[in-house]
Amino acid sequence: MSASSASPAIRLPFDELQQLLRAIFQHHGCSEKVAAALACNCASAQRDGAHSHGVFRMPGYVSTLASGWVNGQAEPKVTDVAAGYVRVDAAGGFAQPALTAARPLLVSKARSAGIAVLAIHNSHHFAALWPDVEPFADEGLVALSVVNSMTCVVPHGAHKPLFGTNPIAFAAPCAGHPPIVFDMATSAMAHGDVQIAARAGQALPEGMGVDADGQPTTDPQAILDGGALLPFGGHKGSALSMMVELLAAALTGGNFSWEFDWADHPGAKTPWTGQLIIVIDPSKAEGERFAQRSRAMVEQMHAVGLTRLPGERRYREREIASREGVALSAEELAGLNALLR
Amino acid sequence: MSASSASPAIRLPFDELQQLLRAIFQHHGCSEKVAAALACNCASAQRDGAHSHGVFRMPGYVSTLASGWVNGQAEPKVTDVAAGYVRVDAAGGFAQPALTAARPLLVSKARSAGIAVLAIHNSHHFAALWPDVEPFADEGLVALSVVNSMTCVVPHGAHKPLFGTNPIAFAAPCAGHPPIVFDMATSAMAHGDVQIAARAGQALPEGMGVDADGQPTTDPQAILDGGALLPFGGHKGSALSMMVELLAAALTGGNFSWEFDWADHPGAKTPWTGQLIIVIDPSKAEGERFAQRSRAMVEQMHAVGLTRLPGERRYREREIASREGVALSAEELAGLNALLR
Repeated sequence: MSASSASPAIRLPFDELQQLLRAIFQHHGCSEKVAAALACNCASAQRDGAHSHGVFRMPGYVSTLASGWVNGQAEPKVTDVAAGYVRVDAAGGFAQPALTAARPLLVSKARSAGIAVLAIHNSHHFAALWPDVEPFADEGLVALSVVNSMTCVVPHGAHKPLFGTNPIAFAAPCAGHPPIVFDMATSAMAHGDVQIAARAGQALPEGMGVDADGQPTTDPQAILDGGALLPFGGHKGSALSMMVELLAAALTGGNFSWEFDWADHPGAKTPWTGQLIIVIDPSKAEGERFAQRSRAMVEQMHAVGLTRLPGERRYREREIASREGVALSAEELAGLNALLR
Repeated sequence: MSASSASPAIRLPFDELQQLLRAIFQHHGCSEKVAAALACNCASAQRDGAHSHGVFRMPGYVSTLASGWVNGQAEPKVTDVAAGYVRVDAAGGFAQPALTAARPLLVSKARSAGIAVLAIHNSHHFAALWPDVEPFADEGLVALSVVNSMTCVVPHGAHKPLFGTNPIAFAAPCAGHPPIVFDMATSAMAHGDVQIAARAGQALPEGMGVDADGQPTTDPQAILDGGALLPFGGHKGSALSMMVELLAAALTGGNFSWEFDWADHPGAKTPWTGQLIIVIDPSKAEGERFAQRSRAMVEQMHAVGLTRLPGERRYREREIASREGVALSAEELAGLNALLR
């Protein structure tokens, strides 16, 4: 979903935006390392046109930090569990700095064992998931990640919400192309996109969610005000969402989407759960180089008429931003500056 | 989809059915080991009411073996690649005996490294996928498998079929319950269910597939006669199907769903592709035992009104079959006996 701003776009160099966001995070109590990880993630989303996870998220980060719900200074504790297994206790902080801390060990294990898993728990994830996996593909690795979030999705066949929007992200290298990357909520719609639609007063398509009485609605505000989302694709999306709960929470030692209670932290917005990342080294495979095969697949996808592959819109936006700067509305920039006061 | 037979069900003890199927496979040129693996898989599907992968598949297996397309005597070659990576060349035979051959090494690697992957290539898979993953969960492991198949699904946004039905199966242990298991085609419908509907002359729901001209149809025969299926859940299911191609084919060294040509083998029905299985040892996790957490999730799912969890219908049918025998129609049994001549 694109940003819906009345004013013309301001173009800010990526580094400048990242610096501004880093300053905001530090101003609100984050350590330098945490601020750097979150600023990079959030600025990247804005740069790539993924607005529901761009600067739109900053007030939520700030109110969460102010509420004491998340530890902006957390030092993640990395444990080398086994030849293919790394565990991180994010210590009540954000998942991104936990990934940053564990990443070198994870990559070295994946390259040596052929596959490795990173199990993050006691972590907060409030961001797009593709920035967590794309860099692995840049290094020639295949990555899959899942993160559970907060109760807002009614399992298929149930009458009350239980699961989170529980995204799945995947990244794979592709010869002569940027990596093939997707990041999909297992809900019919991402929560951030519901928030953006509500702010813009736009109706949603049918089948996205229900209101507080469990009745189908196209009003995003009704979904936010005690309503809930539906899974995508009926019982199949619902089963995938369940799988995300098991992998991201049960397997990591993190909270399920329904297990944390932030009632004592008004302003808290970040789900306190877990995240799983699986990294595979495709050079262990039989036959041709993986990236060549991946490229062959892309060519076939074009041949059957696909004009846009997963991730391509983001790369196009990124390319424009690298020339012209990252697009922000004047209101968005003013909002960011206000967060520095 | 349930079997649609006119005659009342005959009940055959599971072992007897398995023995009959094994005899049929051997009669048509399979080695003892291959026959045992396939008979167990197919009889299990019939027992659990998964009729599109039960004895319904036997004529397809037999015509494929007769066509010389698949090697019923193949000896899989297992390679110990790395601490978490096992590769199997199925040698042009079926994937199930390849899994059987590699399984002990895979399980021992998963327990020691925390995670392990089995990459099967040069393999034929014509069966349900859940029988491949469920046994890992019986041993307390978490398993995820993907297999690509044959071009019959139009990627979202394309105008011609490319992907296979490309199922994803998942299994996880659950304390005091049988494992939580799902097996879902990433197509809107499984190919076997389309075949069953066509045989029964039943119309399909909207949104399942297109005819040979690319027009939406509810006629299963039109889908089989040059038409194609659609992915489930629009662009999300389509992205998952693409991921299955990358993991099951590109990563293993197997064929993509569009790469094999069986024109010289009339009667051939089995896709010649690859399969990936990821196995995780949840005892490496932080906190409570995984199976307890999994059980806690199931209780919450019941609390929000879910009456049937993934896999539960199969367990119910299995329970009935264990008391009364596996249900077959008289026609089905006659058909099986005819395959022994």
